[in-house]
Amino acid sequence: MKTIRLALLGFGNAGQAFARLLTEKQEELISTLDTRVLVSAIATNRKGTLLAEGQEGLNLSNLLHDLKKTGRFSRDEGKTALQVAEDAEYDILVELTPLDIFSGEPAISHIKAGLNRGKHVITANKGPVAWAYRELKELAADKGVDFLCETTVMDGTPVFNLVRETLPFCRVTEVSGILNTTTNFILEEMEAGRSFEEALEEGRRRGFVEADPSADLDGWDAAAKVAALMNVLMDAGITPLQIDRKGIGGVTAEIIKEAGDRGKSIKLLCRGWLEDGIPHGKVGPEEVDRKSLMAVIDGTSSLVSIQTDLMGKLSVLEHNPEIEQTAFGIFADMTTIVKRQEK
Amino acid sequence: MKTIRLALLGFGNAGQAFARLLTEKQEELISTLDTRVLVSAIATNRKGTLLAEGQEGLNLSNLLHDLKKTGRFSRDEGKTALQVAEDAEYDILVELTPLDIFSGEPAISHIKAGLNRGKHVITANKGPVAWAYRELKELAADKGVDFLCETTVMDGTPVFNLVRETLPFCRVTEVSGILNTTTNFILEEMEAGRSFEEALEEGRRRGFVEADPSADLDGWDAAAKVAALMNVLMDAGITPLQIDRKGIGGVTAEIIKEAGDRGKSIKLLCRGWLEDGIPHGKVGPEEVDRKSLMAVIDGTSSLVSIQTDLMGKLSVLEHNPEIEQTAFGIFADMTTIVKRQEK
Repeated sequence: MKTIRLALLGFGNAGQAFARLLTEKQEELISTLDTRVLVSAIATNRKGTLLAEGQEGLNLSNLLHDLKKTGRFSRDEGKTALQVAEDAEYDILVELTPLDIFSGEPAISHIKAGLNRGKHVITANKGPVAWAYRELKELAADKGVDFLCETTVMDGTPVFNLVRETLPFCRVTEVSGILNTTTNFILEEMEAGRSFEEALEEGRRRGFVEADPSADLDGWDAAAKVAALMNVLMDAGITPLQIDRKGIGGVTAEIIKEAGDRGKSIKLLCRGWLEDGIPHGKVGPEEVDRKSLMAVIDGTSSLVSIQTDLMGKLSVLEHNPEIEQTAFGIFADMTTIVKRQEK
Repeated sequence: MKTIRLALLGFGNAGQAFARLLTEKQEELISTLDTRVLVSAIATNRKGTLLAEGQEGLNLSNLLHDLKKTGRFSRDEGKTALQVAEDAEYDILVELTPLDIFSGEPAISHIKAGLNRGKHVITANKGPVAWAYRELKELAADKGVDFLCETTVMDGTPVFNLVRETLPFCRVTEVSGILNTTTNFILEEMEAGRSFEEALEEGRRRGFVEADPSADLDGWDAAAKVAALMNVLMDAGITPLQIDRKGIGGVTAEIIKEAGDRGKSIKLLCRGWLEDGIPHGKVGPEEVDRKSLMAVIDGTSSLVSIQTDLMGKLSVLEHNPEIEQTAFGIFADMTTIVKRQEK
């Protein structure tokens, strides 16, 4: 039986859901992949940092219990995430630290530290994929390790894994979709007659609107996702700065009403394509027919459409995800790495 | 460099598109998979049957040219598809003979002949998957070979490969969708005010309505696809006879108009689920909200939604496929088999 040790950087909702999933699937991982998966380190800013003593890994059930009771781990090794990436013992680094959408740091540095040591890296943080994918991918290739990021767009819903594993020999020529929940929800609520402020408040109450929603409202989150999609699927080598970006700030109740009278909805559309080999990306509010696919993406659901040379166009939808779907994406990437070790 | 030899049973539009794709991708298969793919036999009822002489495989460009010119191959070895499956030299049998939706034969016998010889089998024929999947899958497992069938539901759009390759450890608990083009198109046209006969005629003109459309209109095609989905994804071990099936015969212009007045569309919905572990399948016309995902599946597009334990619900859409998408599904299955040989 093989043993795979994970170091988790960050342990918020997604990290905790992933730890629960690992605990649940421990026996099945052993029986189907002949692999014992251990967590050898967890680094956080505010809950403490844990390093496993000996070869058994951290006791996930116990530390989840501690967290629930006190909001902190029962001890703290006093290491930073970067120190853990650089020094701890692990086989796969799992980057789950908070996103800085305007730089991708410090996650990029964490990932580089892991890759430079010849460790596999999984990131659920879209920053590094939007800002530095090509460099990180090349570093991973140099070191002969994997750098996987399924969760960065549409949580665990297969997008990157879909193209890599099920569309062999296909070139992706265009991506499009609805990728930002906050703006999609607000536009939908405004169409139903609520004010922008009411919609924002309702989104906050339901837990998916950030304390500071400006990165969502201004289209930065969507632009980062377009950059991530284009970098991974089209080798675009671009950053969110190169995406033609417009938020929903200018979309008034009147504009929505007037579009509605013509059978149209306003959606924040995302699109990336190649023109004479040059990558172009765009995010902005656009009118779509109410009987179109884009128009029916509601609630917290998302859509990615992929145009390919060999398989025409296909679309993947995620329906109202919970945090468990984020955890699943990390788990799926981990499974990919474990399976590749078998070869 | 490895060599993989294919025997094609049937050589209609899908087989010919597959042959063109193979020719186009020949060099790339060699450079990326270190594998030369040859066609060592093609069996047809009406165009003749060809067996390759020597080790070079059939010249696909030449025989496609012959077909275009005369509708037949330039020679005929006089063998049946079953004889080719039983006797020809090949590594992968590709079953593309015409569908018998009420029995799955003779495709089931062809596939058994290949599997019994320890050969991999790819089928684009949904009959065997709807009627005999469990038996064929078990036979393949006994012989240590692959039995793949991506193309049988939504052409090359990843459904079976999606679940197998990108949803590790997930249990599928429900499948649903819109899977029959003929009925979907007719219902859409009737909603737009055309008569049933006009819609049928237009579908024929556009090439996707069969000479005898009764298997589509009565829901048999959809029932076979539900059975196939449930057999592959949920190990249901059922046949189309066990699907609660209703066609669109009873759907009148008045019913559609009356539903439309209430903001509803009528769609032929497909659904398969487990109830206390027992598989249930259903096909029939149902009302859906015009602002729902089901309602916007139009033209010749299709939809499969998959409910899982770990990844929640996701959906995959195929947008107005052409025959090249069928060819791609066969090609993707072939690639899977070639890659597994590498291990």
